[in-house]
Amino acid sequence: MTIPRLLLLACLLAPLPPATAAAPYRSAQQILDASPAADWRTPDPDNLLYMELDAGRVVIELAPGFAPEHVANIRTLAREGFWDGTGIYRVQDNFVAQFGDADADDPTKAKRLGAARTRLPAEFERDAAGLAFDLLPDPDGWSPQVGFADGFAAGRDAGAGKAWMAHCYGVVGAGRNLEADSSIGAELYVVIGQSPRQLDRNITQVGRVLQGMELLSALPRGPEPMGFYEDPARRTPIRAVRLVSEVPAAERTPLQVLRTDTATFRDMVEARRNRRDDFYKRPAGHIDLCNVPLPVRAAKD
Amino acid sequence: MTIPRLLLLACLLAPLPPATAAAPYRSAQQILDASPAADWRTPDPDNLLYMELDAGRVVIELAPGFAPEHVANIRTLAREGFWDGTGIYRVQDNFVAQFGDADADDPTKAKRLGAARTRLPAEFERDAAGLAFDLLPDPDGWSPQVGFADGFAAGRDAGAGKAWMAHCYGVVGAGRNLEADSSIGAELYVVIGQSPRQLDRNITQVGRVLQGMELLSALPRGPEPMGFYEDPARRTPIRAVRLVSEVPAAERTPLQVLRTDTATFRDMVEARRNRRDDFYKRPAGHIDLCNVPLPVRAAKD
Repeated sequence: MTIPRLLLLACLLAPLPPATAAAPYRSAQQILDASPAADWRTPDPDNLLYMELDAGRVVIELAPGFAPEHVANIRTLAREGFWDGTGIYRVQDNFVAQFGDADADDPTKAKRLGAARTRLPAEFERDAAGLAFDLLPDPDGWSPQVGFADGFAAGRDAGAGKAWMAHCYGVVGAGRNLEADSSIGAELYVVIGQSPRQLDRNITQVGRVLQGMELLSALPRGPEPMGFYEDPARRTPIRAVRLVSEVPAAERTPLQVLRTDTATFRDMVEARRNRRDDFYKRPAGHIDLCNVPLPVRAAKD
Repeated sequence: MTIPRLLLLACLLAPLPPATAAAPYRSAQQILDASPAADWRTPDPDNLLYMELDAGRVVIELAPGFAPEHVANIRTLAREGFWDGTGIYRVQDNFVAQFGDADADDPTKAKRLGAARTRLPAEFERDAAGLAFDLLPDPDGWSPQVGFADGFAAGRDAGAGKAWMAHCYGVVGAGRNLEADSSIGAELYVVIGQSPRQLDRNITQVGRVLQGMELLSALPRGPEPMGFYEDPARRTPIRAVRLVSEVPAAERTPLQVLRTDTATFRDMVEARRNRRDDFYKRPAGHIDLCNVPLPVRAAKD
């Protein structure tokens, strides 16, 4: 008879002797548990958003290194309380949850943008020069190179000298109209399914969810084909979206993110690339960019 | 101001003039709308399951070509009503929803298996010989070749002469213990997140969800790290799982699936590989196996 709990302990914890290799195998969790404190970074509160829902808090880390003008505008919108009282007005299965002002396309109803800019350049990619890039050696069909930069999964074209964020699970992007420069960061979406990498270099990405993904990914799907809730009553209310640097210390959720330029991260990726516990009979010998975990933990005192 | 509806119309419908190429661009939807009836197949009711939930019906197509002994056992279990009154007892974010007998590992509580077999061989892969395989030319990091067989996303190793199902979104697999041959098809899981291809050739896959994914993917996530609901009240009740060949015609959901050996399918894949509508500024020139839609539609009279 199958024993699902054992199956999962084997999958995820795997405190088991190596099946094939000479070196003792350590699972990703064991590697993380043994990591030195210096391998973890505390995100800058000016680059963090809290989205407060009735069900709880979603923590988003912004990516000023990839989308500086969008991030600056998002900070302004958060300071002004632009998203307070708005909602998640679209949830499309295996694609995205989208939030902001559902009446944005109706000038008579649209919320005021206050000091926020109403036009921004597209920030689909940035110069690769000056960007520390932790290369993932595994092949990728979407990009000449892939890896990690500023804590985000990214693609890079060394020949073109460009780098960009990759549309992995949990990434936050800026919805736009047909024009490349028609996003301002007010209407945002979060990837909740198979990574839609075809959107890479076609939309400005602004960050990723560090905590609370399940508050977005488990929302009821909206009507097909695109998941928009035309009925406002079906939208998920957003109490507030706040810039964490403006949140009192006592109300913050202290989080740390594993640095990708560490031996701990490289060892964890290898443990995922070639799982050598007793559950896996055939290590993959490969990992895709969007299958690489980017660990987040509660800050340690 | 962004106009999300237009964004999506552009993404999904794209009835727009070609941006770059000489040939007029047709979106995937336009290609499907123009498809001849012969491009669609009606799944064998002996290979279909209905999972009846309070929220609606999930339709699963079984894969006897890949896992004949598991599929035979699943038919037996469905005929006996094994899953009736059981539940979805695990939902792990970005991974799987798992259902069956939550007490399977407790001999004093486990449901009787009746005529079902209690031991089956592992069916992780099959001989490639004799399997029609519609090759996807795009590179894949997990498998020497990828494509479509029997209506399922699949990998193939021509040198080894083996083929296997790929763990894409919506795939149904048979939970097992540490032993490769410890699954019998009673405890099943459905992939609800980024495709966990590392499980390819490590677990017996038995089919995929054709309709009703949103009834599984939007379920509240269970407690971390593995998403098991220890509290039975939090599990999602399963009214029944029925083999469609035993369901009265009047109660059936007539569905058709697009054949993958058709020009319609190849054209649709190319339309997704290189999107040339006014929304996409840079066609990807690539598509990953698990990003290829496998269209299902209501049967036409």
